[in-house]
Amino acid sequence: MRAEILSIGDELLIGQTINTNASWLGQECSKLGIRIVHVTTISDEKQLIKDAVDEAFKRADLVLVTGGLGPTKDDITKYTLCEYFDSELEIHIPTLQRIEAFFSKRNRPMLDVNIRQAELPKKCTILENVNGTAAGMWFEKNGKILISMPGVPYEMKGIMMEQAFPRLQEKFALKALYHRTLMTQGIGESFLADQVQDWENEVREKGLGLAYLPSPGMVKLRLTSYEGESRAEEIDAYFKQLEERFPNYVYGKEDETIQLVLGRLLSEKKMTIGTVESCTGGSLAQTMVSVAGASDYFQGSFLTYTNELKNRLVDVSKHDLDTVGAVSREVVEQMAKNGREKLGVDICISTSGVAGPDGGTEELPVGTIWIGIATKDKVSAKKFQFGDHRERNIQMTVLTALNLVRCEILGILIEKK
Amino acid sequence: MRAEILSIGDELLIGQTINTNASWLGQECSKLGIRIVHVTTISDEKQLIKDAVDEAFKRADLVLVTGGLGPTKDDITKYTLCEYFDSELEIHIPTLQRIEAFFSKRNRPMLDVNIRQAELPKKCTILENVNGTAAGMWFEKNGKILISMPGVPYEMKGIMMEQAFPRLQEKFALKALYHRTLMTQGIGESFLADQVQDWENEVREKGLGLAYLPSPGMVKLRLTSYEGESRAEEIDAYFKQLEERFPNYVYGKEDETIQLVLGRLLSEKKMTIGTVESCTGGSLAQTMVSVAGASDYFQGSFLTYTNELKNRLVDVSKHDLDTVGAVSREVVEQMAKNGREKLGVDICISTSGVAGPDGGTEELPVGTIWIGIATKDKVSAKKFQFGDHRERNIQMTVLTALNLVRCEILGILIEKK
Repeated sequence: MRAEILSIGDELLIGQTINTNASWLGQECSKLGIRIVHVTTISDEKQLIKDAVDEAFKRADLVLVTGGLGPTKDDITKYTLCEYFDSELEIHIPTLQRIEAFFSKRNRPMLDVNIRQAELPKKCTILENVNGTAAGMWFEKNGKILISMPGVPYEMKGIMMEQAFPRLQEKFALKALYHRTLMTQGIGESFLADQVQDWENEVREKGLGLAYLPSPGMVKLRLTSYEGESRAEEIDAYFKQLEERFPNYVYGKEDETIQLVLGRLLSEKKMTIGTVESCTGGSLAQTMVSVAGASDYFQGSFLTYTNELKNRLVDVSKHDLDTVGAVSREVVEQMAKNGREKLGVDICISTSGVAGPDGGTEELPVGTIWIGIATKDKVSAKKFQFGDHRERNIQMTVLTALNLVRCEILGILIEKK
Repeated sequence: MRAEILSIGDELLIGQTINTNASWLGQECSKLGIRIVHVTTISDEKQLIKDAVDEAFKRADLVLVTGGLGPTKDDITKYTLCEYFDSELEIHIPTLQRIEAFFSKRNRPMLDVNIRQAELPKKCTILENVNGTAAGMWFEKNGKILISMPGVPYEMKGIMMEQAFPRLQEKFALKALYHRTLMTQGIGESFLADQVQDWENEVREKGLGLAYLPSPGMVKLRLTSYEGESRAEEIDAYFKQLEERFPNYVYGKEDETIQLVLGRLLSEKKMTIGTVESCTGGSLAQTMVSVAGASDYFQGSFLTYTNELKNRLVDVSKHDLDTVGAVSREVVEQMAKNGREKLGVDICISTSGVAGPDGGTEELPVGTIWIGIATKDKVSAKKFQFGDHRERNIQMTVLTALNLVRCEILGILIEKK
């Protein structure tokens, strides 16, 4: 089954909103073997929408439309599709009741514009939106399907998961493309490709698809079988080879985040963790806490952004701060060691560095980061040289620190690459 | 000038990568008056790329292509464009030298695949990539332009900013669409639209475009003049009207984040700030620290994820934790007040709540969040009821807390909506 995503909205074209809907739909459709062949983004204009639907129907059996269903005057998707499918609007009673309930539950008055959201085309199946007031719409024409949904991500996701995907699965016998992903941290794309050349040649000869998907600090390796799940075991075996060769880089599979993998490891080992952060300013803690259930192992942190707080909250030596400076082995080791005691945790990670864009010197250029780790038995620290971009440096530090802790717990030797 | 973005890569279609390049290009092009009329995403397949370029040239004068220039075997954009524009590859010496320098600076050996990246089509102008090894390419055909760039965001941005935009500005007399944006926090899209109905009608009658751009916790209002900057003052006056009517919701302009606005305010008032966080787990601090120069006002935080650390680090009463519980006015007020003293800051914000997805009860359902603020003169707390989504609840809490502090400093009365 071939599908096209049609995203409607000037805010997408002028870049005020990032099209995360398209990527989510791409992920979920892939899992069901619905192949997204095209993503198109256009403006909220009647003729453009009609033309784009025409084009999409030429390329695909299913068109997923997001956006333009809001209560405000710039939202015209519903009116345009009603015309396109030669239908007319009428009040859809269950939707009206749902909208009324939505507002009364929140103790808010219902507005005229919200009532108008219950006016829906006669010639479509209404897909209930439990998270908002704009209903989803399922149109059919010449054996092809168009599903229109609001652009608000969690409303769109609710409609797809609860309504649209079950109907699609029921209506079609969907055959799955089969993707598997291996997650690596700490090695660049070219280096990884170079080190796995023999493996890559073998994989490709066997007719599997391979893609390198780099993002800051990480490279994902995706293997694709075009014969569905039948080659799952083979793919597993190929991944296992890489895992054994590079235990320091390979940390997980299937888009698992490193914080999830580390969290699982900490839970298994019944270990607790905390952080003492300077340059990362809470990003390290926040990344760990983003995992549901993090309270099983994450206890708390000191964010010591200033030297004074490094000294006052976690007893970093004033002398060291004044002589070797905050961005040093001495300081991150004290932060980790003393933080570990004060937080009462098994493992404490510390960070201190020059995230940028300002504050770099010849000795400590922007991107210089020290990461410290304290456990019951030892305190260690490593220095890294990242780049010029503040956000990227913070992100690299967080990912690197989480992988360092994972390797520390598993007793894997880290080599810098 | 009409432009189309052509994003190439299976990773975009199956949603493993979010197309942030398209939104960045949309933003930057808008500023120069280049109107993005279409964004197309397709697979790494030769014929699809050629067809998409054909289609794009029908709709637009400029085609911005991202992706498919990496050193690995799945990257075919360069070879395809070389064919499309009827050219052939040859080693481009300056690029080869740059690649050599790139690797020697990083003390890394240069690989064969990297040398091949210096093989570039004869019939194009090479756009230097200072951040990576894949050069940008500028092709011309029948008065239309195609620019091909790597998909790695900061490499693409470097090529656009340093090379492509200056050339485009020089070559064409670009007339600007003029957008202005007003930022609001704490009021939903429908409510805002309802409250500004009179204003909206007037603005539209005057021929300005208005769009509501909602995201969790925020609504942006965008006014567009189709006659360029000539209506800037008029737009400013319209924005001023809303600012005066809703000082509690309207916090800024032009995509300024609330952390930036608050940071500026704190710097002006020479005030320092810190946080004591439970449910937000560092997100509040991290959001403030994401602003370059945050060290002028942000000092540090306690992240007290467990009750034990709430008591041990910031002296929250054990009795209160045991009786009224961690998610209560009593506890967030103590967190803010004691945290303020221990951090030695002028203002301290505290958070405690049920972020979800688990842990809700009938009395304290998921989404219940208390936010506390302590200043020299007073300690206050407010309770909020957000939704069911963990990430969204944390984000809403952070934005709401930052706006509360802004209003507190400015002496604006907050009404909940």
